[in-house]
Amino acid sequence: MAGDACIVMTTVMSAEQARELARAVIEVRLAACAQTLPISSCYRWDGKIVEDGEQMILFKTLADQYSALEAFLLERHPYEVPEIVRLPVDGVSGKYRDWLAGEVG
Amino acid sequence: MAGDACIVMTTVMSAEQARELARAVIEVRLAACAQTLPISSCYRWDGKIVEDGEQMILFKTLADQYSALEAFLLERHPYEVPEIVRLPVDGVSGKYRDWLAGEVG
Amino acid sequence: MAGDACIVMTTVMSAEQARELARAVIEVRLAACAQTLPISSCYRWDGKIVEDGEQMILFKTLADQYSALEAFLLERHPYEVPEIVRLPVDGVSGKYRDWLAGEVG
Repeated sequence: MAGDACIVMTTVMSAEQARELARAVIEVRLAACAQTLPISSCYRWDGKIVEDGEQMILFKTLADQYSALEAFLLERHPYEVPEIVRLPVDGVSGKYRDWLAGEVG
Repeated sequence: MAGDACIVMTTVMSAEQARELARAVIEVRLAACAQTLPISSCYRWDGKIVEDGEQMILFKTLADQYSALEAFLLERHPYEVPEIVRLPVDGVSGKYRDWLAGEVG
Repeated sequence: MAGDACIVMTTVMSAEQARELARAVIEVRLAACAQTLPISSCYRWDGKIVEDGEQMILFKTLADQYSALEAFLLERHPYEVPEIVRLPVDGVSGKYRDWLAGEVG
């Protein structure tokens, strides 16, 4: 059963955007849970280094939901070039895995 | 040497629970370090979408300690269905890896 | 295209140290983006369990930049034994991947 879960990471501008996007994803059962963390970002944009406060969202889902979740995020995301990163998972404890599988799809 | 470390992720309700669980794991040498981050969680429970403040804990350990750490967390964890997720690591810088290996087991 | 990105994780003592290190890495194009998160750390040092506030930095980069980024971090890092952990990535959405590839190297 290990290996069939994954984590999908994205970032948005505000806690309110994070809350809306998280809720929308849980609503349509493309992930079992969304966890939002406040971050400070540093990157280059239009040739200048910028620093921004953002919110990172980690979605816990099954690997077979990834394509649908990515498409959903790309459609809803407020950014021109949203960060959507898929992280592998090596294992998930039994009861949590059962709960996760029951929540998505 | 790369590939033998892993990260184990769990969540608890409060900073105090996180502090206690982190300390207990380090005490028995099932991880070298525990890092706690405040998060906002969104998930469905009993058919309703709920939003909660929680704490995420990331344990840094060796892969051969995973089963013992999972068992320890399942026994001590305050939740009915705790999230315990194992994340792979592709590499760890040399001195940190040595320190990690000396701290666990 | 999936699989050629990676995340590099390190921790420093303060938001100011994080800001400086993040900016330095983006400046030399060893990563496309640095995300800093406040954490509470628990670990054993000199035989005692200590708890510290720290900052975790996640660098998003391409796998072929890892060695140069690790060397850069080891040289600049304020810690004696810095944590430098490389996390695998299973996939990155198309436009973000293009942006990332254009920012590094």
